[in-house]
Amino acid sequence: MHEISIPNLLLIMAAMLVAAKLFGELAERIGQPAVLGELIAGLLLGSSILGVVPSEGPATEVIHVLAELGVVLLLFEIGLETDLREMFRVGPASLAVASVGVVLPFALGFAYWAYLPHAASDGTGLTTAIFVGATLTATSVGITARVLSDLNQMNTQEARIIIGAAVIDDVLGLVILTVVSALATGASLTTLGILRIFAIAVSFLVIAVLVGRFVAPRLFDVVMRMQVRYVLLVFAVAFALALSATAALAGSALIIGAFAAGLILSGTNQFDTIEREVRPVASIFTPIFFVSVGASVNLRLLDPTREGAAALLGVAAVLTVLAILGKVAAGWAAPWVRFRRMVVGVGMVPRGEVGLIFADIGRRAGILNEALFGAILLMIMATTFVAPPGLKLLFGSRSSQPAKT
Amino acid sequence: MHEISIPNLLLIMAAMLVAAKLFGELAERIGQPAVLGELIAGLLLGSSILGVVPSEGPATEVIHVLAELGVVLLLFEIGLETDLREMFRVGPASLAVASVGVVLPFALGFAYWAYLPHAASDGTGLTTAIFVGATLTATSVGITARVLSDLNQMNTQEARIIIGAAVIDDVLGLVILTVVSALATGASLTTLGILRIFAIAVSFLVIAVLVGRFVAPRLFDVVMRMQVRYVLLVFAVAFALALSATAALAGSALIIGAFAAGLILSGTNQFDTIEREVRPVASIFTPIFFVSVGASVNLRLLDPTREGAAALLGVAAVLTVLAILGKVAAGWAAPWVRFRRMVVGVGMVPRGEVGLIFADIGRRAGILNEALFGAILLMIMATTFVAPPGLKLLFGSRSSQPAKT
Repeated sequence: MHEISIPNLLLIMAAMLVAAKLFGELAERIGQPAVLGELIAGLLLGSSILGVVPSEGPATEVIHVLAELGVVLLLFEIGLETDLREMFRVGPASLAVASVGVVLPFALGFAYWAYLPHAASDGTGLTTAIFVGATLTATSVGITARVLSDLNQMNTQEARIIIGAAVIDDVLGLVILTVVSALATGASLTTLGILRIFAIAVSFLVIAVLVGRFVAPRLFDVVMRMQVRYVLLVFAVAFALALSATAALAGSALIIGAFAAGLILSGTNQFDTIEREVRPVASIFTPIFFVSVGASVNLRLLDPTREGAAALLGVAAVLTVLAILGKVAAGWAAPWVRFRRMVVGVGMVPRGEVGLIFADIGRRAGILNEALFGAILLMIMATTFVAPPGLKLLFGSRSSQPAKT
Repeated sequence: MHEISIPNLLLIMAAMLVAAKLFGELAERIGQPAVLGELIAGLLLGSSILGVVPSEGPATEVIHVLAELGVVLLLFEIGLETDLREMFRVGPASLAVASVGVVLPFALGFAYWAYLPHAASDGTGLTTAIFVGATLTATSVGITARVLSDLNQMNTQEARIIIGAAVIDDVLGLVILTVVSALATGASLTTLGILRIFAIAVSFLVIAVLVGRFVAPRLFDVVMRMQVRYVLLVFAVAFALALSATAALAGSALIIGAFAAGLILSGTNQFDTIEREVRPVASIFTPIFFVSVGASVNLRLLDPTREGAAALLGVAAVLTVLAILGKVAAGWAAPWVRFRRMVVGVGMVPRGEVGLIFADIGRRAGILNEALFGAILLMIMATTFVAPPGLKLLFGSRSSQPAKT
């Protein structure tokens, strides 16, 4: 009746959930954030080692959807926990950090590929250089937010700047994504076209939050008078799903809509009930996302007997250094505010899923060859794995034991 | 990158959730169980009216998976809430009710099609008659359990007998399903083969619960010592998913595994935390299931201008009467126990998704023609819609206001 084998899918999900929690626990026991363990669980379950999480076929599509639900719920939860006034206060600092954190890595990556000698050069020219630069720009707000949350640091000034900058990064990343997607299809881009994409993303966020903060409290006061079970939770989740979809359909990104939905509902009177009930739901989906990200990495590229493995590792090492330098430098982008610049810089380092999406578009368009794609994957992996212990180290003794449910 | 449009899917989910709660609320306001409203919401969103829930394409597959997750979580929750000792006490009564409730409707349906004159006869013979009988046998434990839960009647003697009988029905239904599936492919069946299917389903349930009640408390005492967030909930859900999948792969049914997982975990020391945290998660998925069931009904078959609509309605009416009579009579199947026989009989009436699965197999194998398939769908729909108000009426003034979260 259906292409998808539901029992197989349920077993895969069960394995992802159990592995996520086991490795999350191990990570915490050695003093690292749980999300690092979830990424490692993904590496192990992925097709390069155990092959539990499939990399193709109908089950992959469903897992992808569940993982996307995980990101949406995660960003919704982060939005709910975000204090909008605090956000405005750190807004200019976040904007400065985000801008430098996009422009600098892009310039470094582009220059490395377009002008400097490098081992994996194959003369594909400027388009490839633009792609290399683009994969260095995005910040994975999901991973950093989970690390900060795992370390109980979500209420610090640094966390606010990072989350704000990461959201702005998503807006900028979206513009870059649209530009590189157009490049991949061979289209020519006008400055006006680029500005238009940018304007859509920014205005979606602003309009949604302005209208939403006015309409949502009235709407949820009505919903609260309803008697059916979990009506607040179900309406809140439906609101997050609908706003995420609207953001994507309006030419912006899912996660921008999900974050906006959280920001909006944090202004309702039913905020604490919603937050309390959303958490268990999110706790089932977000591990699916992080395990998926880990599972999408192909470890076979590291095999030293593989032809070109040394060159690939060399390029990967350079890209990783550029990726880290460019983002860490962004910590010094807002000299008029006092905060721990190294924390913000390191918090901006993980590329995660956004970088993977860019790299995948380039690979499928033939702009990135297998070796360069592999090097970029290693860079994404390295930045994603380096930030959690880095942040943990920087927060040092201030971190307390994570709350237990 | 993916066939499935995630924004569209999220919008469909949001619509399903909002419609489920709005119509659930309306149903409660007029004194009916919320699940009736969710089924009506499905009818409205289905392809015969609004077309919001698609009936084909990749999004349908994903919604189907989410709906299956909804049934699994629902049966898991029901298992958690079930007192195993109480269950054993009503066991013989449930077995008697289930047996009569399967044998009688099957015999009535088979005799009607094989021996009596009827409007839609097309001479396809005994195989068709067996299919007609089979579609009358299964009880949708999901719908009845939700009705009982909506009416706060889950702790009554009648509810225990119904739930027990419905689970036994699933075991019997599974045997019938395997038999009719084999008939549909033209295979011949031995009595031994039928007994084997039966033995697998029964022994899965018995072995899983016996082993599980011994192993699970020890396992969860270890899990409880873990520090990561929501580790109990995530392990409990993974356990339910894995046991459901194992049941299906062992030749039994998903929902039998999910129910067994709930029964097993109700014996752990962490039972109350698990139950409290599973509820919000289930509250997101179960409406997706009930709306899906409603949406799978094709209302166009009722169109009076359609050729053969009158004959179809006649057959549907007879099948509905047989379906209701056969199950209501089952209420009198255990004369040695005192309980409200009418309540148990009516509680066994809804066919829901299991009947739909039978009918769909017959249609695709060409054993049920479009008209007969339509009549069976109408019968399934009628039995599904008649039970909630029927139970509500029978429980009458004893029903209290449903708990609010």
